[in-house]
Amino acid sequence: MGQYVAPLRDMQFVLHELLKVEDEFKQLPAHAEIDRDIINQVLEEGGKFASEVLFPLNHSGDREGCHLDKETHKVKTPAGFEAAYKQYVEAGWPALSCDPEYGGQGLPIVVNNCFYEMLNSANQAWTMYPGLSHGAYECIHEHGTPEQKALYLPKLVSGEWTGTMCLTEPHCGTDLGMLRSKAEPQADGTYKISGGKIFISAGEHEMSQNIVHLVLARLPDAPSGTKGISLFIVPKFIPNADGSLGKRNPIFCGAIEEKMGIHGNSTCQMNLDNATGWLIGEPNKGLNAMFVMMNAARLGVGMQSLGLTEVAYQNALVYAKDRLQMRSLSGPKAPDKPADPIIVHPDVRRMLLTAKAFAEAGRAFSSYIALQIDRELNHPDELVRKDAADEVALLTPIIKAFLTDNGWIATSEAMQVYGGHGFISEWGMEQYVRDARINMIYEGTNTIQSLDLLGRKILMDNGAKLRKFGDKVKAFVEANGTDEKMSEFITPLGDIGDKVGKLTMEIGMKAFQNPDEVGAAAVPYLRVVGHMVFAYFFAQMAKIALEKEASGDNFYKAKLATARFYFARLLPETAMLIRQARSGASNLMALEADLF
Amino acid sequence: MGQYVAPLRDMQFVLHELLKVEDEFKQLPAHAEIDRDIINQVLEEGGKFASEVLFPLNHSGDREGCHLDKETHKVKTPAGFEAAYKQYVEAGWPALSCDPEYGGQGLPIVVNNCFYEMLNSANQAWTMYPGLSHGAYECIHEHGTPEQKALYLPKLVSGEWTGTMCLTEPHCGTDLGMLRSKAEPQADGTYKISGGKIFISAGEHEMSQNIVHLVLARLPDAPSGTKGISLFIVPKFIPNADGSLGKRNPIFCGAIEEKMGIHGNSTCQMNLDNATGWLIGEPNKGLNAMFVMMNAARLGVGMQSLGLTEVAYQNALVYAKDRLQMRSLSGPKAPDKPADPIIVHPDVRRMLLTAKAFAEAGRAFSSYIALQIDRELNHPDELVRKDAADEVALLTPIIKAFLTDNGWIATSEAMQVYGGHGFISEWGMEQYVRDARINMIYEGTNTIQSLDLLGRKILMDNGAKLRKFGDKVKAFVEANGTDEKMSEFITPLGDIGDKVGKLTMEIGMKAFQNPDEVGAAAVPYLRVVGHMVFAYFFAQMAKIALEKEASGDNFYKAKLATARFYFARLLPETAMLIRQARSGASNLMALEADLF
Repeated sequence: MGQYVAPLRDMQFVLHELLKVEDEFKQLPAHAEIDRDIINQVLEEGGKFASEVLFPLNHSGDREGCHLDKETHKVKTPAGFEAAYKQYVEAGWPALSCDPEYGGQGLPIVVNNCFYEMLNSANQAWTMYPGLSHGAYECIHEHGTPEQKALYLPKLVSGEWTGTMCLTEPHCGTDLGMLRSKAEPQADGTYKISGGKIFISAGEHEMSQNIVHLVLARLPDAPSGTKGISLFIVPKFIPNADGSLGKRNPIFCGAIEEKMGIHGNSTCQMNLDNATGWLIGEPNKGLNAMFVMMNAARLGVGMQSLGLTEVAYQNALVYAKDRLQMRSLSGPKAPDKPADPIIVHPDVRRMLLTAKAFAEAGRAFSSYIALQIDRELNHPDELVRKDAADEVALLTPIIKAFLTDNGWIATSEAMQVYGGHGFISEWGMEQYVRDARINMIYEGTNTIQSLDLLGRKILMDNGAKLRKFGDKVKAFVEANGTDEKMSEFITPLGDIGDKVGKLTMEIGMKAFQNPDEVGAAAVPYLRVVGHMVFAYFFAQMAKIALEKEASGDNFYKAKLATARFYFARLLPETAMLIRQARSGASNLMALEADLF
Repeated sequence: MGQYVAPLRDMQFVLHELLKVEDEFKQLPAHAEIDRDIINQVLEEGGKFASEVLFPLNHSGDREGCHLDKETHKVKTPAGFEAAYKQYVEAGWPALSCDPEYGGQGLPIVVNNCFYEMLNSANQAWTMYPGLSHGAYECIHEHGTPEQKALYLPKLVSGEWTGTMCLTEPHCGTDLGMLRSKAEPQADGTYKISGGKIFISAGEHEMSQNIVHLVLARLPDAPSGTKGISLFIVPKFIPNADGSLGKRNPIFCGAIEEKMGIHGNSTCQMNLDNATGWLIGEPNKGLNAMFVMMNAARLGVGMQSLGLTEVAYQNALVYAKDRLQMRSLSGPKAPDKPADPIIVHPDVRRMLLTAKAFAEAGRAFSSYIALQIDRELNHPDELVRKDAADEVALLTPIIKAFLTDNGWIATSEAMQVYGGHGFISEWGMEQYVRDARINMIYEGTNTIQSLDLLGRKILMDNGAKLRKFGDKVKAFVEANGTDEKMSEFITPLGDIGDKVGKLTMEIGMKAFQNPDEVGAAAVPYLRVVGHMVFAYFFAQMAKIALEKEASGDNFYKAKLATARFYFARLLPETAMLIRQARSGASNLMALEADLF
């Protein structure tokens, strides 16, 4: 039934050798005391929890799914999920990177992010329960009144309560401006909220005492469209001022969706029938408040696919070393056995290395973003915070879309290594593919991410944020351009950097004439930029590996081989993508809709 | 719950305008009387059967799956499957392209192939029951004794009996040389066969009176490896000479696999415990006999993914015209509605056109191969038959691997058009993705297909078969090179033709030094050749469309737009693939297995 071993060595490599987080933390007063030992210890313990508690529930959770009792409105999560959550809360994990003012442990986001990679590798469906709480925590932390913070944050930080995001309605997902749920103000300052929400992850369950729903709805006479949406806190049980639970609020699960994957998570249709809610943030500015959650959630979705990529790779690797089938084309490699292990076959290695390279670059990239978030939140210098915030804004749609597309490719390749057994449920591989598929859709489809990147983040500021990141790439190219051993990495990195610049200019010019050019180029464009980012991190990792190659530590040898594979086999996708992005809107828009 | 409308107009375009099958049939004595009206009528009736009888059972069949009663060894297929099969048999569909000597209707393969596309669009899991019978029919027709033919073929042709292929065992799938099932000769000329088989599609069910299993096993003292495998007919019920059923043969289903998709098909573990079998073909030459089935099966698997591509496209298109969400970037297109239908968005069109282009080129290509099979079987000139056979051999691995990889891409893009609803089972789209996934694995994984193409079909004859096909492409380029309107198609077609030639030479040279170079290049190489084939067919179709554009028939306008999309957006994949194929074996083989 498979295995998961936390990739601690690679995480430590990324945190300590690539990003040198200890040095970074010294510049952040809130984290100045965090050292390597603390980090390593947290990750080691976190890895144990993931492997020993969550991983054994992954396959069974998928098979069992969630079940609604329509009489009691209660949802039964798969066997073991509640007990695992209890352990999680008792160990204090929910508080890891939360504000100490509300009971949090105040660890950096970058550490919490590595922890979440491990949780997702072990069990994505389970991890969504606490994962969504974190979004609710951040939203209330940023936008709540002092009373709201005092009431809700300690419970979310401890994990006694969990949270959800209630955005989507049957007729609107991407286009939230169309939403219809209504909020009627009451004399006591609360609101009565009514409407129907769908696709609410972790919408109803018995794992926590209470569920804090953050619900988008319209006030009476609110402007139409996105400027008339407000955000409300709608708790499942209305809390008393002391945090004890009062009466059940009429926000009920009407049905659980049957879906392709993440069966262990309860994806609920939620019906609100005059449920009591409290406005959070300003009236009609609900989307702004929600975007705080959405940025964190988009990084979180990227981490889901990174987790799946890693665990799928690990299992495919074990299988490829174990399964005997055919002889190597270049002569038997295990002549004492009836056939060679399939890892001798070049194409099996191509599949494995695809997943391995995506996992390693994804880990470096996501840790880098998480560290930038720590700097954005905690650096004493406002300019540094602003720069970090710009970079996070630029890179967030890339981490969401690029890592989830890569996760789809990687889990499918890992499954393919198993041949027919990959298609059979008991081997566990097909679940990774099914679970990975949702990550390309929710929290804004990958098309939406690409429009956010190209339209909002790049063209709207005339490429300023992109140029700042590009300057880092250029500086690295300059600094290492004369190192002969680095040239196999530096030459293609410099090349893709130049191409991104030219491509951006070209699309920007075309977009002036025809806004559809943005939509026509955005998806391949995002992947081109994603590859530039991956090439940048692989080049940096290769530099470290070259420096330490002489140590004889095989970790660096493997890192170099993976980097070489990336540049030879994965980066060339940009040759296709650039042609697609440049091909323009006419090949998409010429045909009238009726003639399709 | 979706829809399926047989794409009759496009099939007629391919058969009558592109391939001009009526003219071709005039050269084939067996089919000289087959005219356009007969073909169109068969396809129309076949389309009705697919849409009206099979399609309504597709989603319910997926939800219900197959169930084994361990007491009686009986397998219950989903509700409606047996009744649909009864209708299928009563209408005479199993006999469509079978030999009239055994009750067949003797229609060309190319017509049957179009029929199978429709069945697969409507219900891949159901279609596998009669689909596997067809393989058994072909194998016995080619290798059976007169007595075996007389006994089995009429029942397979009528559909009263169905068939299976029993190859895989738990420790061997690709590497059949390792198989262990044993056959002991008996005094009466029969064999007692024992062993365990897995992944047997349609292995047990009550849809037909009898199941004719074709089983690979070893004779005592057979040579080891693939040269010691024999093929046996092992019927579920032992037939009397008059075709009536005798006693139950001990070949029982031990379990039904839980799998990712095709839930409506019973994928069985089969246990043979001294089951009675009859040798078919020569002793120890079982693999040769099996390959007859496998070539037909590989075309059949390509057709499964073509069917899924078409039906996924049709449904995504309906949704894209219906779903209102956001405004077009270039201004509202449906100002009277609360939002524009999502088909106005360029990236939604990219997803739709990807599936549309893959479906249309796949249909042209697979019909072309099927017609070549008709020529291989029926042309009076031996040289023509030989040329056709060579081309079928060359193209079969491409149709299997290229169409199934494309089907995976297309069904996933079609699902993505639905946003969150795509992930929800009731919309039906996620089933297409799950069903499509197996097609990349069974009947030889796509890696095996690529090795078959590059190693066996191309390098082993020094590229002779490829050159013959390439000459057709060149002739078309020459003939149309001066037509200015065709230049947008001819220039890239000539270019990819040249590149295939050079790439093949280069890999061939490298393979002399190191056989692993074949395995390292094969998968991207196959897709490059696949694109050359698609470009060739799209160029031919564009030529017809240009000639008929003035007719005002919008069909040709749409065909041209799809061809332009293909050349602009899909063919550029070759820019990536060629780089990958040329990158060589070292980036895959350098890392020791232990260091992964």
